[in-house]
Amino acid sequence: MQIDLHKPILDKNDSLAADLRKQFAEKHVYVVDLLASPGSGKTSTILATIDALRDEFNIAVIEGDIASSVDAEKIKAQGIPAVQINTGGACHLESAMLKRAIDVLDLERLDLIIVENVGNLVCPTDFDLGENAKVMILSVPEGDDKPLKYPGVFQVSDAVILNKVDTMPVFDFDREAFETSVRELNPKAPIFPIAATKGDGVEEWASWLADRVREA
Amino acid sequence: MQIDLHKPILDKNDSLAADLRKQFAEKHVYVVDLLASPGSGKTSTILATIDALRDEFNIAVIEGDIASSVDAEKIKAQGIPAVQINTGGACHLESAMLKRAIDVLDLERLDLIIVENVGNLVCPTDFDLGENAKVMILSVPEGDDKPLKYPGVFQVSDAVILNKVDTMPVFDFDREAFETSVRELNPKAPIFPIAATKGDGVEEWASWLADRVREA
Repeated sequence: MQIDLHKPILDKNDSLAADLRKQFAEKHVYVVDLLASPGSGKTSTILATIDALRDEFNIAVIEGDIASSVDAEKIKAQGIPAVQINTGGACHLESAMLKRAIDVLDLERLDLIIVENVGNLVCPTDFDLGENAKVMILSVPEGDDKPLKYPGVFQVSDAVILNKVDTMPVFDFDREAFETSVRELNPKAPIFPIAATKGDGVEEWASWLADRVREA
Repeated sequence: MQIDLHKPILDKNDSLAADLRKQFAEKHVYVVDLLASPGSGKTSTILATIDALRDEFNIAVIEGDIASSVDAEKIKAQGIPAVQINTGGACHLESAMLKRAIDVLDLERLDLIIVENVGNLVCPTDFDLGENAKVMILSVPEGDDKPLKYPGVFQVSDAVILNKVDTMPVFDFDREAFETSVRELNPKAPIFPIAATKGDGVEEWASWLADRVREA
């Protein structure tokens, strides 16, 4: 049942995503889609990334949430353009939602768009938004066993950010077991340990991202 | 589009859920469905609840995960029957999945079934499983703003467990703001602050649950 119903939605989504991808390439804008659980620190990671890259690049942020605009307000408070998408209940962003947000941004002026997907380790995995990379964030309090339980998101991600590493002493997180599980699902994606609210480790992640933005 | 497609799925799900609910009532089994983000401590909360209630009640656990059986193994290690449902990618449990798990349990012998839904604050909200109560867990590291961003799950929950309260000094969690937001969405649901891995606060939550199991 699910496969029959999903197929036409995905085809339509993917076709629009391909249009968006072409548009991003023509305008030399790099788009990164951040996937994570609720409360893993997506917005804090975006704020830290903006801090690291705002001198070199023109950045905009698209915030996907079921409701509220608290995240977009935090980004705007840093003087960075932010567009809030409220999905009205939907558990993931789709390319049609992204298109509406893109339409209000001036792509000519932008180098990098950071998309914060809805907090959900499952559904956003299946939806192409025309982005250049999907990057996932797992936070230490969520536990080292998450690759076993949510393999899909680890497989589709171009990089894995491990956030809140400063809280590792508080939680029983086995970093070696985590990295081994990630490697089995995704041998190529780099893993960036960071503490976004403190800025620790952000430089390495930001440098990986900057290399890609420069090539866009 | 979404409404048109969801409607028939929900009707079929809800009809089977109604059958399950009738079956649970006839057998005097109380069924609680736990909703939470990945890594909020669902399994630890279940283990602590089992510890508190196993002397009085016969308990079984149904574990919903996209992949793996690590949670069911942890429950079985405590000598409690556990059935693992692997959704194979689906982001929530449906009543048809629950029925297959129920079919292998001896309802005559059971007083309480604890269902651990897929880690997802969004999708499980919409699916009736025939349970007596939906209870959600939010963990302190996820942040006090989650009621604003994921209102649906707070609205449908009969009780709210706030887990990992022992880590409150590490995180910038405003408990008063959290409780105010919850109250606006759901004036009735009790909020139980606990630290599942340490057993703190579990007694009050377990007592609330025990009162309901006795009446089933």
